[in-house]
Amino acid sequence: MVSKNQIKLITSLQQKKYRIINQMFFAEGVKVIQELLQSNFELEHLYTTQHDFEEVLGSKKSLIHENDLKKISALATPNSCLAVFKIPEEKTIIESGLIIALDDVRDPGNLGTILRLCDWFGVEQLICSKETVDIYNPKVVQATMGSISRVNVTYVDLVEYISQTKLAVFGTFMDGENIYKSNLPQEGIVIMGNEANGISQEIESMIKNRLSIPRFGNLQKAESLNVATATGIILSEFKRNQT
Amino acid sequence: MVSKNQIKLITSLQQKKYRIINQMFFAEGVKVIQELLQSNFELEHLYTTQHDFEEVLGSKKSLIHENDLKKISALATPNSCLAVFKIPEEKTIIESGLIIALDDVRDPGNLGTILRLCDWFGVEQLICSKETVDIYNPKVVQATMGSISRVNVTYVDLVEYISQTKLAVFGTFMDGENIYKSNLPQEGIVIMGNEANGISQEIESMIKNRLSIPRFGNLQKAESLNVATATGIILSEFKRNQT
Repeated sequence: MVSKNQIKLITSLQQKKYRIINQMFFAEGVKVIQELLQSNFELEHLYTTQHDFEEVLGSKKSLIHENDLKKISALATPNSCLAVFKIPEEKTIIESGLIIALDDVRDPGNLGTILRLCDWFGVEQLICSKETVDIYNPKVVQATMGSISRVNVTYVDLVEYISQTKLAVFGTFMDGENIYKSNLPQEGIVIMGNEANGISQEIESMIKNRLSIPRFGNLQKAESLNVATATGIILSEFKRNQT
Repeated sequence: MVSKNQIKLITSLQQKKYRIINQMFFAEGVKVIQELLQSNFELEHLYTTQHDFEEVLGSKKSLIHENDLKKISALATPNSCLAVFKIPEEKTIIESGLIIALDDVRDPGNLGTILRLCDWFGVEQLICSKETVDIYNPKVVQATMGSISRVNVTYVDLVEYISQTKLAVFGTFMDGENIYKSNLPQEGIVIMGNEANGISQEIESMIKNRLSIPRFGNLQKAESLNVATATGIILSEFKRNQT
């Protein structure tokens, strides 16, 4: 059974406001929950419809009916389990190696995909502007496929942060230098912009290294690349000489 | 005004079955509709809440109320216009240059993003297995941002097609050759697999060129790349020496 208060609490965690008040978030599905359990995320409570997760203490676990899972799930088709975790304290920024910084990325799927890309390409630090979608948004947690446990994510005033960093700052623009012909360093910050508006003017004025992903073909009418796919191409270019 | 019959027809076009019966699909939003109009797509009828699209004949256009647009739209927040187009005859496959072939990609967002990538990287032909999501699915049309008008998309029995092609066939696998160190040709077919299961066994047995996108970092626990971001990285690698 899931009590009315528990249902109320868990569904409230779909909203950022209540995640902040309660300092909790939730994840759904065996894979994501297992990855979070194996990392340093502190479990508040696990709700499952199966006799699984033997590693979790009985007091932290409830066997519930599918109908109850439906009541607390954020998914149209609920998985077999949902776990509430404490939001960990934000760690300080790891200012070394390659860093991705997001200037108001709003789509949860894009943030989740970018986090998976950071994990794949060994990027340890993801910096997000305050207006970027919350990393503990259930749709983001779902889209990260567990990568959330392996990349340090920090929310900052991006203008302030960029204005004081000693690392080289990169961004992609239509008029930038061909990324395929640029000499890319192993260290630096790559800024990725908002889905509709790209990189904001204030941030753009602070970017010294303007790169460009060339378009190909005869027509060259493709308007833009999705921010997550562009991040993948850029990370691949920065890392390809390190194999 | 939009008649009951029109509402019934247009909403039915959200389903593949009725798109096939009626040989029609619809697109929403000024940008996508304009791109389709400028290409060879034959307009059936345009519904708009604004006095726009002056290039469209009055008999092919209806000025409608927002409430009527809501009734025919597939979007949670309808745009200002919706246009019904005839599904064009499928063109024969352009068997030259670089081709992307999808082995049961099911997510409309992924197919749309892949089409945008093909457009960006000058890939003129996208081949889809019969089980791949329909290109005229409204969510795909929306995600393509107009690229649907510039890339030739053909649905085939993929096993049959691959078994007879004379082009080199590529695929990415964990045990493949490092894509960053491979000598990639300007011509060939790159197979991308299903979101959950990857490339099917039958297709895999026909792939002679096994590539791999290396993982980086100390942990190397990232499980996989999203199929659309992987397509972006692969296209970038195939094309980077052509700038």
